[in-house]
Amino acid sequence: MSETLLSSRNLAFELYEVLDAEALTQRERFAEHSRETFDAAIGTARGIAEELFAPHNRKNDENEPQYVDGGAVLIPEVKPALEAFIEAGFLNATRDFEVGGMQLPNLLSQACFAHFQSANIATSSYAMLTMGASNLIESFGNSEQKQRFLTPMIEGRFYGTMALTEPHAGSSLSDIRTRAEPAADGTYRIKGNKIFISGGDQPISENIVHMVLAKLPDAPPGVKGISLFIVPKFLVNEDGSLGKRNDVVLAGLFHKMGWRGTTSTALNFGDNGECVGYLVGKPHAGLSYMFQMMNEARIGVGMGAIMLGYAGYLYSLEYARQRPQGRHPDGKNPTSAQVPIVEHADVRRMLLTQKAYVEGAFDLGLYAARLFDDTQTLATAEERQQAHELLDLLTPIVKSWPSEFCLKANELAIQILGGHGYTREYPVEQYYRDNRLNPIHEGTHGIQSLDLLGRKVSQNNGAGLKQLTRLIQACCQRAAASESLDPLRQPLENLVVRLSSVTLELLGDLIQGKVNQALANSALYLKVFGHAVIGWRWLEQAICAEEGLARGNSADADFYLGKLQAARYFLTWEVPSCHHDLALLVARDDTCLTMQDNWF
Amino acid sequence: MSETLLSSRNLAFELYEVLDAEALTQRERFAEHSRETFDAAIGTARGIAEELFAPHNRKNDENEPQYVDGGAVLIPEVKPALEAFIEAGFLNATRDFEVGGMQLPNLLSQACFAHFQSANIATSSYAMLTMGASNLIESFGNSEQKQRFLTPMIEGRFYGTMALTEPHAGSSLSDIRTRAEPAADGTYRIKGNKIFISGGDQPISENIVHMVLAKLPDAPPGVKGISLFIVPKFLVNEDGSLGKRNDVVLAGLFHKMGWRGTTSTALNFGDNGECVGYLVGKPHAGLSYMFQMMNEARIGVGMGAIMLGYAGYLYSLEYARQRPQGRHPDGKNPTSAQVPIVEHADVRRMLLTQKAYVEGAFDLGLYAARLFDDTQTLATAEERQQAHELLDLLTPIVKSWPSEFCLKANELAIQILGGHGYTREYPVEQYYRDNRLNPIHEGTHGIQSLDLLGRKVSQNNGAGLKQLTRLIQACCQRAAASESLDPLRQPLENLVVRLSSVTLELLGDLIQGKVNQALANSALYLKVFGHAVIGWRWLEQAICAEEGLARGNSADADFYLGKLQAARYFLTWEVPSCHHDLALLVARDDTCLTMQDNWF
Repeated sequence: MSETLLSSRNLAFELYEVLDAEALTQRERFAEHSRETFDAAIGTARGIAEELFAPHNRKNDENEPQYVDGGAVLIPEVKPALEAFIEAGFLNATRDFEVGGMQLPNLLSQACFAHFQSANIATSSYAMLTMGASNLIESFGNSEQKQRFLTPMIEGRFYGTMALTEPHAGSSLSDIRTRAEPAADGTYRIKGNKIFISGGDQPISENIVHMVLAKLPDAPPGVKGISLFIVPKFLVNEDGSLGKRNDVVLAGLFHKMGWRGTTSTALNFGDNGECVGYLVGKPHAGLSYMFQMMNEARIGVGMGAIMLGYAGYLYSLEYARQRPQGRHPDGKNPTSAQVPIVEHADVRRMLLTQKAYVEGAFDLGLYAARLFDDTQTLATAEERQQAHELLDLLTPIVKSWPSEFCLKANELAIQILGGHGYTREYPVEQYYRDNRLNPIHEGTHGIQSLDLLGRKVSQNNGAGLKQLTRLIQACCQRAAASESLDPLRQPLENLVVRLSSVTLELLGDLIQGKVNQALANSALYLKVFGHAVIGWRWLEQAICAEEGLARGNSADADFYLGKLQAARYFLTWEVPSCHHDLALLVARDDTCLTMQDNWF
Repeated sequence: MSETLLSSRNLAFELYEVLDAEALTQRERFAEHSRETFDAAIGTARGIAEELFAPHNRKNDENEPQYVDGGAVLIPEVKPALEAFIEAGFLNATRDFEVGGMQLPNLLSQACFAHFQSANIATSSYAMLTMGASNLIESFGNSEQKQRFLTPMIEGRFYGTMALTEPHAGSSLSDIRTRAEPAADGTYRIKGNKIFISGGDQPISENIVHMVLAKLPDAPPGVKGISLFIVPKFLVNEDGSLGKRNDVVLAGLFHKMGWRGTTSTALNFGDNGECVGYLVGKPHAGLSYMFQMMNEARIGVGMGAIMLGYAGYLYSLEYARQRPQGRHPDGKNPTSAQVPIVEHADVRRMLLTQKAYVEGAFDLGLYAARLFDDTQTLATAEERQQAHELLDLLTPIVKSWPSEFCLKANELAIQILGGHGYTREYPVEQYYRDNRLNPIHEGTHGIQSLDLLGRKVSQNNGAGLKQLTRLIQACCQRAAASESLDPLRQPLENLVVRLSSVTLELLGDLIQGKVNQALANSALYLKVFGHAVIGWRWLEQAICAEEGLARGNSADADFYLGKLQAARYFLTWEVPSCHHDLALLVARDDTCLTMQDNWF
């Protein structure tokens, strides 16, 4: 039977040939793990994803949550799927053994979770949000908050959300209006409206813990006046039992193009002045805390985009192998048998493009997951700091690149299925509709581009960027040992040299205060930077594939040859396309900047 | 009130400044027309589109046709909208006065129809299919067929369809299996199954006239054995009254991602051996006849793609003007007011890109419509033949370029609306879903690329291509008179020079029999060719805009400056991006061609 969620051969390649997951078991935290325990976790994840998540993916889409009596009603399949997920330990895969976790590396946790995202992005979202919210309380909550809220979240009894967006402000968090008034008992009274809150209501968990951004009465203006609050759906008594319903009202559900199984809610906090919230950490420091959850969510969104792309790729590949239609251009004899469409060069192009996008991004997503492990478990503070810097730099790429290019992969999957791909009788159109959310939520594409160019590349005197450049150079150096990799290496080297030089120029503009000009074409910069990063990850994969071929395992030869061909596609078809974008950046082209509203 | 269907200023620019529609009134056929009659027709179209088509566009989407008792049931708004369309004369806009037509140029008919496509692509499709089918009977049917079927179609009582695709064959028409057996009475008995037949059933018209491709018993294999048949839903008596139900059964409806208001049907012909069909024209010549309808439909599909792009562009532009959010990068004072998002450079980029795609394609679509008029009404047979050759060459571009790039425009419209754009509370996600069909039906993108490179560029010794090259050169020559147009002209000249040279090389390969290699990257060729054509059309528009500015009508200055900026965007951002594609074509890159099935 063909695989539908992801290729296990490719996952093993990533874990054990490219990213050396086994080396992690030499770190103290993971000492009890081994390739066997890793593989067992992955096998369990695959089983649950196939048996309990994938079967209701279409049903989720066709039966979006309904607003009934002030609450959201979901299809019955969601709850048992999430229960099995929790029961198997995936909600706490990375937590300590002593609190019931699996103490897995983040790399493995992401690899497991990828199966659920591929099988059913909507149902898996409830879990992802709960993991992010609980990690946030774990990092910044006080012991009472942990006892009341974190413990039941770890137990899977309470779910979590992140409540940032407001109707009038959207991406501009500095303009949020939700207020928090101190109450006599040390808690706060929250008042305001939030929209697009995923999982903001659902009938699955006993309680919902909203992580809410709001402003205190004495808040300075802008992002420096944002504080973070825990606002539960139901209050929690000291003994852990549920108290009365908090003054949080489900104002309505949004009806989305895709991703329909996840409730997207409008929530009113404190319509009756009785919405109790608990301040997390210090006043006015909320955004910096929330960035932990946002960064986790951004990587999660990137992985979600990748897995939707992956699912579509595998489906369209299988379809192309089964579906006979037409003949080769040089063999038009109409009495000959039709060939499977995978034989057509243009279909191969669409499959190879998907493979290059999806497997390139998958490698990057797992690389980022492993970097997260480095931030936690490398030996010295300095090494951990370095890992932090690199991960910070890569986060906008991990979020945005798959959101754009794995979406494009889904578009190609539809095209391969032709008229069938456009019908809801086949899954690929849903993958596309689901994936279209990813360039929007957790910071739009535009926000990511400003984050990258306006902040991340220059952070800590460009420490992350210098590190990345060194890593890419080192990769090119290793590749240079193999002559057959020259045509793959050279385009990457050419791109990185020019990108580095453009980066310096744009940073120079920023330093000179030419801010609007320097950031005007940040979308181009984001694309080129992303292509350089993915190009690097493909060259790494190509090196590993050559090593695999050299080991001479003939059963695997096809796999490695496919890797080399996809690397060749990405590095010779995609990477050089960036030079025109670079030319526009070098020229500080102002076509878009100088366009006037009344000229449209 | 802002315009929602298309910009009338832009339409007037196209008709009267770029394409000189008034010159058509000097031709005998259009002698009774004038700018006033043209504008009156457009005004009527806009009114009906706004009042009867646009209001049920979302309802069409939310209430897709239902299969009830063997037939398709539609929402009640579709019928009166189409009746008003017919009543106003748009079904026969180009037909002779003497049969009740408006004897309008095709250019004006398309310009009118564009309003309906923008307002409601699904409802307008029933009309488009009927126009195509009736034109087909008019061209190739005998007088009895015309009396029985064409007359009621012109009267709007019968609708039409095109029935080509079969379950096992898809794009490969040479493999169709539907059979036609001669009967004693000179009619035929049709037997076979067709899928994806748009408008294949509906409860609106008295009868449905299916134009069906099928094979006679003595048919040679392949496309040379295809014949064309009229197969009505109800038989028609000699006096024109409806006879018994023909043996055509609605086997089911497809459930699509978008374009939901148009029934997409599976039809079974002759399950009971009693399906009566009437041969059109000569045996085995059906495909060549059908190409008339397919070519009309391809231009219609292109125009539909453009108008969906146009509707999304106008909506997102209005939204960007109204929606305050954030501040300029150099003005981050959080106490200052938020600016409308149209102020952000990246939003302007997304709007300008949409404008460049949509208005560039709109110009090409109308240019093609005017070419069609030339094929009918130019003075000499030689001139008409020339127009034919150019239109033939451009048809795959008119079909495919908007299907790809106006779809991309819709994607950008969603992005501008952010989270809102992803909800079904706003129209842009529907435009995207509707538009996603266009790269698939009426010949997929891949088919168009093979049609262009494998057939059209070399047709008649490249007569069409030579003409196009001359036209582009002439345009560049005119542009060279204005120094300010140099930066726009030069990229186009560079592209066309290289494209011409690559074309010769690829045709050389084809002549030498290297067919698979020459056609392997036809998708790249299609993109570059399309960009060259749209770049040419933008340079033409830029020349006209400069002339407009020179006339010094200050009320129009903003409009012309916007045209020049969009031309600049397309010619400096988009056109040069093709050089990398050209490099791959020159190198006869075989990355996709040599990829193996078992390497995936």
